[in-house]
Amino acid sequence: VAGGYLRDPAAIYAESFRIIRDEADLSGIPDEAEPIAVRMIHACGMTDIVSSLTIFEGAVAAGRAALDAGAPILCDSEMVAHGIISANLKQQNKIVCRLTDPRTRRIAEREGTTRSAAQVDLWGDDLLEGAIVAIGNAPTALFRLLERLDDGAPRPALIIGLPVGFVGAAESKAALLADSRGVPFVTLSGRLGGSALAAAVVNALAIGTEER
Amino acid sequence: VAGGYLRDPAAIYAESFRIIRDEADLSGIPDEAEPIAVRMIHACGMTDIVSSLTIFEGAVAAGRAALDAGAPILCDSEMVAHGIISANLKQQNKIVCRLTDPRTRRIAEREGTTRSAAQVDLWGDDLLEGAIVAIGNAPTALFRLLERLDDGAPRPALIIGLPVGFVGAAESKAALLADSRGVPFVTLSGRLGGSALAAAVVNALAIGTEER
Repeated sequence: VAGGYLRDPAAIYAESFRIIRDEADLSGIPDEAEPIAVRMIHACGMTDIVSSLTIFEGAVAAGRAALDAGAPILCDSEMVAHGIISANLKQQNKIVCRLTDPRTRRIAEREGTTRSAAQVDLWGDDLLEGAIVAIGNAPTALFRLLERLDDGAPRPALIIGLPVGFVGAAESKAALLADSRGVPFVTLSGRLGGSALAAAVVNALAIGTEER
Repeated sequence: VAGGYLRDPAAIYAESFRIIRDEADLSGIPDEAEPIAVRMIHACGMTDIVSSLTIFEGAVAAGRAALDAGAPILCDSEMVAHGIISANLKQQNKIVCRLTDPRTRRIAEREGTTRSAAQVDLWGDDLLEGAIVAIGNAPTALFRLLERLDDGAPRPALIIGLPVGFVGAAESKAALLADSRGVPFVTLSGRLGGSALAAAVVNALAIGTEER
């Protein structure tokens, strides 16, 4: 490849974050939430997601405290689970995704819903209480989580609500934004979201924008 | 959640694909490549990626033939590997990601490069020949692949070149677009890309836009 290319991982991260801070309008983002915005932009290549980003007041402190307390991270997809850099989790927090659990398919068929939503029912009360929930794929998983909270399930510490797409994504995130049932959250309004963005929020909470 | 929401998976897929076909300008996409464009849009929630999408002539036929022949799918990240719906792979094609292979870290340190690029060296000639390569994260992995091809490595059947971000993503994809070393490819110009998009191309080759 003529001319070579930047290949040192630390230098690539540093240069990426420098470009993002140079180009993105982060003026509306509180200091403590800035690493989340930067890592989300880094994950998708788009500086303009900031305009539809909401980081609820207290979300960063709640997320960090949950990680420090060893809380589990409940993910709606295998992609989210595998996007989290587990080496950065100092408490070896458990990363949970039950999409391929045999019970998930049975619940999905019985309830006439997606497996993504069905597995939310396998996040038992003990697991959900104080957890970080990271939804980066399925609107139905976010809708189902809100239903469970309405039914009195224990509160997670933080909801990362970033389902993506054309059916239910905007609506489920609007429902979270309108009433998060008392739970701090991070979300992007509209259709944009995704597993890489959801994982980026967890990685930002764990490590900020150090070069990893 | 007041008013309910669509939860039947087949209905969600069908409605998503209907909205995409309604809103996106797919007039420049050949018929056989349309499912790739639709699934890529579905994965990111953005209809306007079409304007920067290139699906090389013959890429669909090459990708389908490789899948039918049982070719391995070589992925640059665990997220790509876990975004591929393996149940749709009729030949149980092997999904390979060597990012966490202990040799990868040693090569990366020795070469002063990323682990993503280092693992490309662990895609042995026998593995690479006729394979589908799916790069959804690291520009350095795509650059390294092109270097290997320049060094005479066997040709894969298809390169899905979709690294994302601010350092090297646009440049590595421009290098692929300018000279794919004789290999059919799918790419998006510029900063956009990602693991979900790379996996979506594989899923489209495997299953089209049937409702899964």
